[in-house]
Amino acid sequence: MTDFTATRARFRLPQNTIYLDGNSLGPLPRGAEAASRKVLFAEWGEMVITGWNRAGWMALPELLGDRIAGLIGAEAGHVMVGDTLSIRLFQALAAASAMTDRKVILTDRGNFPSDLYMAQGLVDHLKGDKELRIVDPGEIEASLTGEVGVLMLTEVDYRTGRLHDMAALTAKAHELGIVTVWDLAHSAGAIEVDLAGARADFAVGCTYKYLNGGPGSPAFIYVAPRHADSAETVLNGWLGHAQPFAFEETYRPGPGISRMRVGTPAILQMRILEAALDAWDGVSMADVRAKSIALSDRFIAGVEAACPALTLASPRDPKQRGSQVSFRFAEGYAAMQALIARGVIGDFRAPDIMRFGFTPLYIGEAEVDAAVAHIAAVIDKGEYHKPEFQARQRVT
Amino acid sequence: MTDFTATRARFRLPQNTIYLDGNSLGPLPRGAEAASRKVLFAEWGEMVITGWNRAGWMALPELLGDRIAGLIGAEAGHVMVGDTLSIRLFQALAAASAMTDRKVILTDRGNFPSDLYMAQGLVDHLKGDKELRIVDPGEIEASLTGEVGVLMLTEVDYRTGRLHDMAALTAKAHELGIVTVWDLAHSAGAIEVDLAGARADFAVGCTYKYLNGGPGSPAFIYVAPRHADSAETVLNGWLGHAQPFAFEETYRPGPGISRMRVGTPAILQMRILEAALDAWDGVSMADVRAKSIALSDRFIAGVEAACPALTLASPRDPKQRGSQVSFRFAEGYAAMQALIARGVIGDFRAPDIMRFGFTPLYIGEAEVDAAVAHIAAVIDKGEYHKPEFQARQRVT
Repeated sequence: MTDFTATRARFRLPQNTIYLDGNSLGPLPRGAEAASRKVLFAEWGEMVITGWNRAGWMALPELLGDRIAGLIGAEAGHVMVGDTLSIRLFQALAAASAMTDRKVILTDRGNFPSDLYMAQGLVDHLKGDKELRIVDPGEIEASLTGEVGVLMLTEVDYRTGRLHDMAALTAKAHELGIVTVWDLAHSAGAIEVDLAGARADFAVGCTYKYLNGGPGSPAFIYVAPRHADSAETVLNGWLGHAQPFAFEETYRPGPGISRMRVGTPAILQMRILEAALDAWDGVSMADVRAKSIALSDRFIAGVEAACPALTLASPRDPKQRGSQVSFRFAEGYAAMQALIARGVIGDFRAPDIMRFGFTPLYIGEAEVDAAVAHIAAVIDKGEYHKPEFQARQRVT
Repeated sequence: MTDFTATRARFRLPQNTIYLDGNSLGPLPRGAEAASRKVLFAEWGEMVITGWNRAGWMALPELLGDRIAGLIGAEAGHVMVGDTLSIRLFQALAAASAMTDRKVILTDRGNFPSDLYMAQGLVDHLKGDKELRIVDPGEIEASLTGEVGVLMLTEVDYRTGRLHDMAALTAKAHELGIVTVWDLAHSAGAIEVDLAGARADFAVGCTYKYLNGGPGSPAFIYVAPRHADSAETVLNGWLGHAQPFAFEETYRPGPGISRMRVGTPAILQMRILEAALDAWDGVSMADVRAKSIALSDRFIAGVEAACPALTLASPRDPKQRGSQVSFRFAEGYAAMQALIARGVIGDFRAPDIMRFGFTPLYIGEAEVDAAVAHIAAVIDKGEYHKPEFQARQRVT
C-alpha cells in the first residue's frame, strides 16, 4: 500500500495554497536542492567536460527513460528522455508515417494544439503527401478505415480529461494495419498506462506535469521494441548516430531507442528530473489511480452540490477520465483568477474551461474540501465580477 | 579596457586544473548558485505554475536572446534561445531552403557532423528535392555558383579552428542570390561576430561553450530582420504560434523571431544561462579577441619550441583562426589522456587532433606556460605510452 503521507513529505508545496494544477506543472520535489548542488558543484564545477563520462551525464537520457518506462508499462531500454514534447511528437509521427504508404494521419480535436501544429508542419513539408484528418474524439473509432496509415492521439484530453481506451483503439488500429502514436502528456504519472500490454507502436510524453520535473523538464519518447531498430529518423542529431564520437561525415542511426537522441542533452534539467522521479519510490500506480478517482469524485460531488452554475465538462464515469476534472462556466476565466487570489490554483483553458488536477502524491481530501468551499464562495458572492479578475492576462 | 582579473573571479574553476576546454564546456559561473536557488525556491517552489507569468519565465527565450545578440552583432529582438543546436540548425536550414527554388545546399567538411546529419535528414525527407553538396573548406568560394541555393557553414572549424570570412562569403553568396546559414558554435563568445554588418541571413549557435551556460544549456537562432516575418517553419511548436494561448486548431506562425519557438522552454537551464551571461558584463569582445590571440600565439610558440613531434593543425595566421589551437600527433588520444591525468584539460578529436581552447575570461598567460610545460613533459618522457592512457574510452 502506497504511503501518501510519505510521498507528500517529498514535496515543498507553496504556502497558503491549495495546488490543483499539478497537471500543468508539478511542485518542487524536496530532493531538487541536493540534486542541484550535486550537478552544479560536484559535477560541473569539479569535473567540467569530464563530467560527460565521469558523472554519467551521457547516460542520463536512457537512465531516466528506464525509470519512466516503469511508470508507463514500457519495456526497459525503449524510452529516451530529452528535447520537448513537440519535437518528440514530430519524431514519433515521422517514424510512424514512414512505415506506411497510406496517406491519412487520423487524429482528434482533443489533442493539445502543439501536436496538431507539429503534424501540420510534417504533412506540409515532408515527402509522401500525407494528409492530416482531424475528427471529434467520439468519431475516432468509426474513422479507423483502410485509408488511415497512422492514428495519433493524446490519451487524456487536456481540456476535459476524457480518456481514450488505448488498448482497444490500438487493437482495432492494428487489425486494420494502422500504426499508433500515443501522447501521454496527461497520462504519465496520472493513470495506469500499459504501453507494452496495449502493443502501442510509439508514445511520447512530458515530465513537468505529473512527474514533477520542473519548468521545461525534458520530454520522452517510446518506440516499441519491434520497431526500434528500423524506425526512420528525420531529425538526425549527432547523438543519435551509431558512433557519435567517430565524427563520421554520413549519418548512420544508432541501434534501438538511441537513434531518437538528437542534440546535447539538458543535463541540469535532467538531474532535477531524476530527483523528481525519486518521489515515486515505493509508489504503486494502481494506488495512485484509486486515490485520484476518489479525490476527483469527491470534488465533482462537492462542486455540483454547491455550484449549480458550473457544468461538468469531464466524463462522469471515472474509467473514462484522466486525473483532472473540468467544469464549464461562462465567466470561467475571471472565476479562476478569483480562485487564484484565494490561493486555490487551477487553470483556465479557452473558451470556458476551469480545470483542476488531482495528484495523490501530495493532494488529499482536506485540500479537495477546502477547494470546493472556495469555489462556492467565488461563485455565490460573484467575486469574479471584480474588474481585477476580468482583465485578461497571458495565461499558461 | 576589460578587467580580466575581475572576469576570472566570476568563475569557480576546478582545483589543480588548467582548463583549456572551455570551447567544449565552459566552467561553472559563480552566479549559478544564486540563480539556481532563485529559480528553484523563489520561483518554482513558491509560484509553481504562476511562475510562467509572475517570474517572467515565458519571456526568457527572447530576453536571453537579446543578451546574446549583443555578443554576436545581431539586431535586438532577432535572437531566440531554446532547444538544441541540432534542432536550431534544422529550423534555419529549412527556412533558408524554402526561400529558393535552387536545389543545392553547399557546405564543407569543417562543419560539426551534427550539422551535416541534420542537413542530410532534411534533404532526404523534406519536399523540394534538395541536394547536399559537401566540399573541402578551401573550395567553398569557388563552389559558389548559380546552382547553389543555400550556403551552410560553421564559421570556426571544430577541429582546426580555421575561421571562414563571414562578411566576404556572405557578400559573394548574396551577389549570386544564395541564402546563408551560419553556425556560430565556436564563434559566440570566442571572436568578434557581426551578423548585422555581414548581412547574414540565418545563424545558430550554442551556449555551453564560450558562453558557459553549463551542460545542455540551450541553443540560439538568429533570423535577419528582413526575413523574420516570412521565414518558413517546419517544426510548428505551439509557442511559435501567433496566439499560443488561444489554443487554435490551425498553426499560424507568430511575428518575427517568435515563430522559431517550439515547445516549452527549459527554464532551469535558462536561469543558469542568464547567470552565465552576467559574466560578460563590462566585457569588450575586441579585448577578448586580442587576448585570445595573444594567448594562442604564445601557446603555439611554446609548443613548437618544446615539442617538434606535434604539428600545428590550426592556421598560423590568427586572423584565420578562432579561439582554439589544435595540434596533430599520431598518439594524440593517449597524449591527451596523459595530459588530463596531469590536470591539463584539452580534448581529442579523431583521428589525431589535440585541441586546446583559449578563453580569456578565466585563462591567462600563467596557464598557457604551465600547459606548455606539461605537454613537453608528456611528449618528452613518452608518458602517453602507458597502457592506462592508450585504452580508448568514450570521449566527448
